[in-house]
Amino acid sequence: MIIALAGGVGGAKLVHGLAAVLPPEALQVVVNTGDDFDHLGLRVCPDLDTVMYTLAGRANPETGWGLAGETWHFMEALQRLGGETWFRLGDQDLATHVRRTCRLAAGETLSQVTAQLCQSLGIAHPVAPMTNEPVRTMVHTADGELGFQDYFVRRQCAPEVLGLRYAGAAQARPSPALTQALRDPRLRAIVICPSNPYLSIAPLLALPGMRAQLRQAGVPVIAVSPIVGGAAIKGPAAKIMCELGLEVSALEVARHYSPLIDACVLDHADAALASAVNALGIAPLVTGTVMRSMPDRIQLAHEVLGFAEGMACP
Amino acid sequence: MIIALAGGVGGAKLVHGLAAVLPPEALQVVVNTGDDFDHLGLRVCPDLDTVMYTLAGRANPETGWGLAGETWHFMEALQRLGGETWFRLGDQDLATHVRRTCRLAAGETLSQVTAQLCQSLGIAHPVAPMTNEPVRTMVHTADGELGFQDYFVRRQCAPEVLGLRYAGAAQARPSPALTQALRDPRLRAIVICPSNPYLSIAPLLALPGMRAQLRQAGVPVIAVSPIVGGAAIKGPAAKIMCELGLEVSALEVARHYSPLIDACVLDHADAALASAVNALGIAPLVTGTVMRSMPDRIQLAHEVLGFAEGMACP
Repeated sequence: MIIALAGGVGGAKLVHGLAAVLPPEALQVVVNTGDDFDHLGLRVCPDLDTVMYTLAGRANPETGWGLAGETWHFMEALQRLGGETWFRLGDQDLATHVRRTCRLAAGETLSQVTAQLCQSLGIAHPVAPMTNEPVRTMVHTADGELGFQDYFVRRQCAPEVLGLRYAGAAQARPSPALTQALRDPRLRAIVICPSNPYLSIAPLLALPGMRAQLRQAGVPVIAVSPIVGGAAIKGPAAKIMCELGLEVSALEVARHYSPLIDACVLDHADAALASAVNALGIAPLVTGTVMRSMPDRIQLAHEVLGFAEGMACP
Repeated sequence: MIIALAGGVGGAKLVHGLAAVLPPEALQVVVNTGDDFDHLGLRVCPDLDTVMYTLAGRANPETGWGLAGETWHFMEALQRLGGETWFRLGDQDLATHVRRTCRLAAGETLSQVTAQLCQSLGIAHPVAPMTNEPVRTMVHTADGELGFQDYFVRRQCAPEVLGLRYAGAAQARPSPALTQALRDPRLRAIVICPSNPYLSIAPLLALPGMRAQLRQAGVPVIAVSPIVGGAAIKGPAAKIMCELGLEVSALEVARHYSPLIDACVLDHADAALASAVNALGIAPLVTGTVMRSMPDRIQLAHEVLGFAEGMACP
């Protein structure tokens, strides 16, 4: 059994590959909720939705968020009524948020609601939020502290990032599925998907005891670098690393995750960094990590799983 | 200045006619909120919406509710997610409910929110809810007490009505616009539109002191019968009157409103009832009350206003 820790687009792609090669009982997907926010009275969980829509084969490949074939009649009407339209909610996507908000209001946990949504979307593999409690990534910028979506969507990542805070993380408990998977005797590896280390994975690692629990699981922890050839495949990872005074490289990603990880997957473009990664005490795997197609996702999933297997049984 | 008390479809049509012949400062529309309910976490105000959409020229003429040219992508997606779909919310209509719910949650009154929505929809005439406080029409049926929309939409008015209750009415205050209009020295008449007397107008009349205030306004109170030729133009009025053991006739409507009203507008089909209405001490006006077109709405508005003028200055 494998635990996959994921954020949005990049993470969702590898999760999709893992789900294609593993049966449902051999994969536990755990998703960042630091990006979640309440908007227009609705609970919006962007990373969970991206992972769910991707696994359901319904993600919009052009935007990296939302549903394929989406319509925007609600948004257009809201604009005419003078409502907030900086965060785009499609007509079909809206049903997810309305449904989630109703069920949360009725007392269900985010884990329960997510399981229900996955079932309705025909997703066989278990997907859980990292926690049922609110954790909110706050971005400390030159313009003051901003909520994540305020920074990411409304301001289009323009403000310089001075620091990050994961509000609520210290009080949040890992979700039951995550806790249970970490204790599962069948656990063979923990995969940190190629999601933004600072925005998507850090909130999860900020949960109390999480780093220790990942280590104590006694299985290889393998991170796939979202930085390839000194740039982010998608999103503001490179810009943020730069603003935080960090080197924009897969080596810096490995350094960031050290000493948590046993191995790091680098793209062919970063083959020259393998020895430096190795010098950190982290086993490097160099392969193609850019997932442009479903075969790419499956190929990378196979590579990562094979690598993990080799580490677990040397 | 005229006050028009209205419920849904029939009331909205006469309000539309009145708005076509009166300048904005000469009309105050006051709408039933007994049908309002919270659904999918949203505040839905069916009668306010019908009146607003009608005045904006955007009402769906086929359904009698919702917007013309509406799409249903949200509803279809919600159905796929296992959500409640018995109350149909169109993609554009949904923006009204989301906007309203957000602003109410932010502390605005229903009157303020309604005024804002009207402005966005380009409605010049003032439209106010009967009250800012919650009043909920409850239908006592053979199957137990049902919320109004549960009775009206989910059960399609099938259960036999044994009685009605306007929960919250005794604690609710008339909206500021209604109170102010009733005290306005320019007030010339109060028109009770052809809405369901038991479902749409009764909640308004159940507000504390409302009957006395209507009388004390010192102007003619004129009801337009929604019952024509012993049947309701639309909706369950006839069925309910029957179940409550009442005669289904415009005369019964006049009797129901007596002694509140000074005059009652009957359709040509009910000309024979004019003398019986007169015997109640209520002046009858017989004219065409069935509004199939915009000219019909304007014609009836002219008739009602002329009638009121004749009564005010005998």
